[in-house]
Amino acid sequence: MHIGLVGIGRMGANMQERLREHGHEVTGYDQDPGVSDVASLEQLVAALPAPRVVWVMVPAGEITHAVIGDLRGLLAAGDLVIDGGNSNFREDKVHADDLAGHGIRYLDVGVSGGVWGRENGYGLMVGGAPDDVAEVMPVFDALRPEGDRDEGFVHVGPVGAGHYAKMVHNGIEYGLMQSYAEGYEILAARDDLVADVGGVFKAWQRGTVVRSWLLELMVRALEQDPDLEQISGWTADSGEGRWTVQEAVEHAVPAPVISAALFARFASRQEDSPAMKAVAALRQQFGGHATKPAADG
Amino acid sequence: MHIGLVGIGRMGANMQERLREHGHEVTGYDQDPGVSDVASLEQLVAALPAPRVVWVMVPAGEITHAVIGDLRGLLAAGDLVIDGGNSNFREDKVHADDLAGHGIRYLDVGVSGGVWGRENGYGLMVGGAPDDVAEVMPVFDALRPEGDRDEGFVHVGPVGAGHYAKMVHNGIEYGLMQSYAEGYEILAARDDLVADVGGVFKAWQRGTVVRSWLLELMVRALEQDPDLEQISGWTADSGEGRWTVQEAVEHAVPAPVISAALFARFASRQEDSPAMKAVAALRQQFGGHATKPAADG
Amino acid sequence: MHIGLVGIGRMGANMQERLREHGHEVTGYDQDPGVSDVASLEQLVAALPAPRVVWVMVPAGEITHAVIGDLRGLLAAGDLVIDGGNSNFREDKVHADDLAGHGIRYLDVGVSGGVWGRENGYGLMVGGAPDDVAEVMPVFDALRPEGDRDEGFVHVGPVGAGHYAKMVHNGIEYGLMQSYAEGYEILAARDDLVADVGGVFKAWQRGTVVRSWLLELMVRALEQDPDLEQISGWTADSGEGRWTVQEAVEHAVPAPVISAALFARFASRQEDSPAMKAVAALRQQFGGHATKPAADG
Amino acid sequence: MHIGLVGIGRMGANMQERLREHGHEVTGYDQDPGVSDVASLEQLVAALPAPRVVWVMVPAGEITHAVIGDLRGLLAAGDLVIDGGNSNFREDKVHADDLAGHGIRYLDVGVSGGVWGRENGYGLMVGGAPDDVAEVMPVFDALRPEGDRDEGFVHVGPVGAGHYAKMVHNGIEYGLMQSYAEGYEILAARDDLVADVGGVFKAWQRGTVVRSWLLELMVRALEQDPDLEQISGWTADSGEGRWTVQEAVEHAVPAPVISAALFARFASRQEDSPAMKAVAALRQQFGGHATKPAADG
Repeated sequence: MHIGLVGIGRMGANMQERLREHGHEVTGYDQDPGVSDVASLEQLVAALPAPRVVWVMVPAGEITHAVIGDLRGLLAAGDLVIDGGNSNFREDKVHADDLAGHGIRYLDVGVSGGVWGRENGYGLMVGGAPDDVAEVMPVFDALRPEGDRDEGFVHVGPVGAGHYAKMVHNGIEYGLMQSYAEGYEILAARDDLVADVGGVFKAWQRGTVVRSWLLELMVRALEQDPDLEQISGWTADSGEGRWTVQEAVEHAVPAPVISAALFARFASRQEDSPAMKAVAALRQQFGGHATKPAADG
Repeated sequence: MHIGLVGIGRMGANMQERLREHGHEVTGYDQDPGVSDVASLEQLVAALPAPRVVWVMVPAGEITHAVIGDLRGLLAAGDLVIDGGNSNFREDKVHADDLAGHGIRYLDVGVSGGVWGRENGYGLMVGGAPDDVAEVMPVFDALRPEGDRDEGFVHVGPVGAGHYAKMVHNGIEYGLMQSYAEGYEILAARDDLVADVGGVFKAWQRGTVVRSWLLELMVRALEQDPDLEQISGWTADSGEGRWTVQEAVEHAVPAPVISAALFARFASRQEDSPAMKAVAALRQQFGGHATKPAADG
Repeated sequence: MHIGLVGIGRMGANMQERLREHGHEVTGYDQDPGVSDVASLEQLVAALPAPRVVWVMVPAGEITHAVIGDLRGLLAAGDLVIDGGNSNFREDKVHADDLAGHGIRYLDVGVSGGVWGRENGYGLMVGGAPDDVAEVMPVFDALRPEGDRDEGFVHVGPVGAGHYAKMVHNGIEYGLMQSYAEGYEILAARDDLVADVGGVFKAWQRGTVVRSWLLELMVRALEQDPDLEQISGWTADSGEGRWTVQEAVEHAVPAPVISAALFARFASRQEDSPAMKAVAALRQQFGGHATKPAADG
Repeated sequence: MHIGLVGIGRMGANMQERLREHGHEVTGYDQDPGVSDVASLEQLVAALPAPRVVWVMVPAGEITHAVIGDLRGLLAAGDLVIDGGNSNFREDKVHADDLAGHGIRYLDVGVSGGVWGRENGYGLMVGGAPDDVAEVMPVFDALRPEGDRDEGFVHVGPVGAGHYAKMVHNGIEYGLMQSYAEGYEILAARDDLVADVGGVFKAWQRGTVVRSWLLELMVRALEQDPDLEQISGWTADSGEGRWTVQEAVEHAVPAPVISAALFARFASRQEDSPAMKAVAALRQQFGGHATKPAADG
């Protein structure tokens, strides 16, 4: 197939390369002329055969919204827009309705795999109409990992379902990472017993219940920096963990583990915790307990 | 009554004063000669009428254990030792059995109220034999707050029960403090809406569901330092929160709130979190995500 | 003052009574003619002196929205609507803007105190313009508890701020209640040590760090039903706990305690937990561990 | 090698089979004569060449303690006992010291892999003296998975270290399982979007960040019972999750995720929650809120 790809950042560039290796033609557009095949969205649209398929791979939120707005003005009825970014599934409905008003079709795709996806293939979760999904299947087959299609690709449901599944995927990911991380800290707390924490993680790679791809990455990280001395605990969150917790709350689903993992990230970015200042102040009030002045914090 | 009091620190001195105001004779012993009435434990024992009652009010753990060991060698059969410190209830059985081997009686007392206890009276939770409790009741009546006895004093059960109840009291206290503290931070997060967080806490003192003594202390703290600028979030834990969680775990009682409050204190004392370093390292491995070098942490 | 009150349910009726006792004239309207002073909203509006003040005290959400929509069509420029229900603070902006388009003013008020408010007074948190707040102050003064105004009333900030503060108040309340509840269960887990859990709570009412109004209610509940045999653990949540967690998540505020308290309520209403079915299924897969067939659940 | 194996249950029988397939001689003893090679521990000891190696594979706690006590009386100086059960690492020191008094050596081994270990090999974590570990290496090599030794085997440290690492492994496992489980429930909460939850899990097996062995088991479970209708949420815990949390608490390591996963298991086994009864009772006290009588719980 010949598709357009908007956003040639780290993820977009990797996907473009993988698609080309699998024989697809990909015209890429990016604000950075150094990585762009065309000079404008107009030229991108002009370069594509009708009905056009344009895959949007830009940071979620405002930017995705703006790009889709621009495409709505440039594309023709019958064309198809795919949002492959980490968008909130609630926005898919907005985008799909907006485009549908102009006869333009819409798919949302959750893409997992990070920087390893170019080589391993990407896990794909798709939302949208069955016919639209079928039309783009050659592209999905090129992006997804080798092997059975249904082990690396799923048509989850209607518009929004792809990003919903990706959202939950990332929520789970938060919990998994925090589980390994707590285990790491508990192992490291007993250096009288555990001489080499990295060696323990390494030995868990075969045969154990906790073996996983994340575990393998943990092994790599500890091989590169056995005591994690080169890195701080400051950890970003990308939005999907938050949406997972908010969605759980909205549907009255208890999510203690995913929310705890999310809160640990929030806390990691605080220079000092306002809440814990309040606890320290309370202790000082009732017990005259020692506190640390802010300068020592 | 005439009793001995071992440990004339902040708590001990306040209790001594309150007991004397209520007409009791209190011979105090402390390692610090400046606050001690006698020069040694031997002199303390010699100064008391038989059967002697000695109230131990020293930091829990090793020190309590040592003092009780010393008293065992100095007291006579029929005497009575009271541990009023924040001891682990599991140690009460050890101490009681040890003393019982010499005919010495034992009570454990959980004491709440902090520095305000001298004026307001102390909440008392007692474990031990009914006859022993009855014998010391005049002392308990002097220490507890005015009003109905059963609103500030309780004979919880056999030896250990007093400290068990105090342990749970403190576990609850952790949860209460963290609840107010999280609320403080959520209020402070919206300074576009909430001009004066302290004013909101102040207004909660009458009529609301959340009114409490801790709330009043929160109001005082925010009056003294409206943005808690003078204090860091570094928060100690005294042992009882840990025991509460460990006891909950042992008896298969879900304790998500009390444990979350405890973990927040642990985290407040970490310069950087080993667990969050692990999460950051994992994110870097799979996504090439930005991290902060340790120096920036 | 003479005001209108829409919604004469349990809360509304109590407030009406308290206002009348304090000398205010209150014309009440309710769908139930048995408790209503007038037959329609139109009659309510007709009965009030201009500029009219109408206090809306109906269940939050759709119903509040509908009542305010109706009032917008009936009131005149210069009139004032007060939403005293448990509305989401995000809706206040919508309502205020909507009414402002017709020159109608708006205040939002968080009201705490439950069924005890009629006697004790209600804790009031108000959002809106200072002049509007000042105009209604006689009503606020009648509703709030005796004593210093700023210990039972606060003008938190602009429109929305009153409900925001009430939302956080209720989030804190969730954490406080769960703290006492976990303590209750840990005490009850050791009936070899703690003969009378209710007696322990009773003794915490004076002198201790955990004394509070909720503790007093806990004492009452345990006096009426010492083992809580007449009640199930099924616990509703009213929305404000959810909004507190969602707001915390949106502002990257760690809220482990309030969210744990919320999730415990969600779990209390599940006949069986889908998540725990999944855990049980996993254990069965890897270990051949015993599970319970669904019928036994 | 020729070793003795005490405990021919599900795990023991599988391990015996795998060892024999790899050319080792294994004399097994079990209380059940149907699976035992010898009639008594005495006969087992008599059948082994000196220095004897006896691998104990019985349920942890009392039973392990009893078996090791029996072996101490039967074995000779220079013999070697291996505890391969899920024992608490704190007991290893006790057992090792006890045996050392008779010149008997001791290793502790954490064994992971469940019922799949016979085919895939077992992940092994070992504590003890380097010479003892080296002596038993042929047995470890037969039990561990094919491939590099250090990807399925680790000599963690001195006595106790093997079970410590296994304890943390299981703690992590609790967190991982709960993460997938919460994700399952959040997916299932939106059946308007997610038609086939099992299909989503299936598609995560290749390319995604969350791929793991547990995920594959989840796929199997959902293929066998797509809505988990045949299973209840009642979930046991085997001790190691509890020890992990208690150890974290003892070393002031925040472990919000692992503890939340543990508490979810506790809650899954409660017919009704005493804590939530207390919350419901409190709500009834202050708000007259609806509760459910116990019979409806």
